Amino acid sequence: MLARVSSTPAFKRLPRAVREQQMLDAAVKVFSRRGFHAASMDEIADDAGISKPMVYAYLGTKEELFVACLHREGTRMMQAIAGAAAPDLPADERLWRGLRAFFGFVGAHRDGWAVLYRQARGEQPFAGELAAMRARMVEVVAGMLDHALRAEGREVAEAELEVVAYALVGATESLADWLADHAEADPEKTATRMMNVAWVGAAQLLQGTTWRPPAA
Amino acid sequence: MLARVSSTPAFKRLPRAVREQQMLDAAVKVFSRRGFHAASMDEIADDAGISKPMVYAYLGTKEELFVACLHREGTRMMQAIAGAAAPDLPADERLWRGLRAFFGFVGAHRDGWAVLYRQARGEQPFAGELAAMRARMVEVVAGMLDHALRAEGREVAEAELEVVAYALVGATESLADWLADHAEADPEKTATRMMNVAWVGAAQLLQGTTWRPPAA
Repeated sequence: MLARVSSTPAFKRLPRAVREQQMLDAAVKVFSRRGFHAASMDEIADDAGISKPMVYAYLGTKEELFVACLHREGTRMMQAIAGAAAPDLPADERLWRGLRAFFGFVGAHRDGWAVLYRQARGEQPFAGELAAMRARMVEVVAGMLDHALRAEGREVAEAELEVVAYALVGATESLADWLADHAEADPEKTATRMMNVAWVGAAQLLQGTTWRPPAA
Repeated sequence: MLARVSSTPAFKRLPRAVREQQMLDAAVKVFSRRGFHAASMDEIADDAGISKPMVYAYLGTKEELFVACLHREGTRMMQAIAGAAAPDLPADERLWRGLRAFFGFVGAHRDGWAVLYRQARGEQPFAGELAAMRARMVEVVAGMLDHALRAEGREVAEAELEVVAYALVGATESLADWLADHAEADPEKTATRMMNVAWVGAAQLLQGTTWRPPAA
């Protein structure tokens, strides 16, 4: 076994990884175009320029392929947001950076959002995966609010913060859905709008107060 | 035809309406317990205490029955919100009343919410119905914001208001989902929390400012 592995030149492994990404690219495209049920493995194989048995060999059944798409898109999104985080900044600027990264990701991967979110949210086996991702996001947002409160020497019950975080995550999801449907909409402007709703609040907006991103 | 209709005594029509409501009650219960795909017409008929052919005769196929459930629950919800509306009140109190009615509805119909929202949002033919209801809610909220702005002699582009309304509706949906999962949670308290997020804004909340419902 060891001898077989070591006899495989390193460059042989790269095509497999590249090929898997090509298959996932094709799968994301076909799933978001057709929906999970109507998508066919034939079309995915065709789009990836690979035989259908090879798709099964690499990534398994249609269900497994869909879960692989969900995981790849979800991980990419979380990485984009984590990369924007900077724990030493003021809370509003951290929220702004996270939102900008999130809407930037959705704007750049409108197809992926359709798979990650719209297809998965109602389908029984996948809705659980999505709920787990949302729970992670809620925890991150609640943790950020808690951090900002503690910095001011105050404290709010965990359950209370969780509810506020649910509302913020729900508002953000709804706007992401809107952004995915509007090819001409600007992701950064959408993040600023979300700041005006989430941070400044509708009442402040009505009074003409608006939050602006810090000068870059 | 006319003769046949007028020969049917009025009290004969009542049982049909009552029976339809019983079937819809049973269908909402079974769909929310099993999910759309796993729900069987046998179980719905059993639960309603009626034969399966009668269910088909009254309300059609499983798809049609599901759409009938969606329409009934959606209409009930819209009526609850509309009943709480009072156009002459200040904007914050109108929003508060609408939210209280909405969360009160969800809290009283947790089964219905599961059908109306969770089952429908991912299923291809039904997701469109749900999107249409959401679009109506977005329009109502955008109209309310517009009305409040005009009362102050100001104006904001329609597209801008629509985006804010999407965020508010998304936040509200997310909290309703949370409420449906927490049998012990109080709907009115949830409406107050939503006001604190939507109206006062997270920044105000962090500063210790909280919006309170007007004394009843």
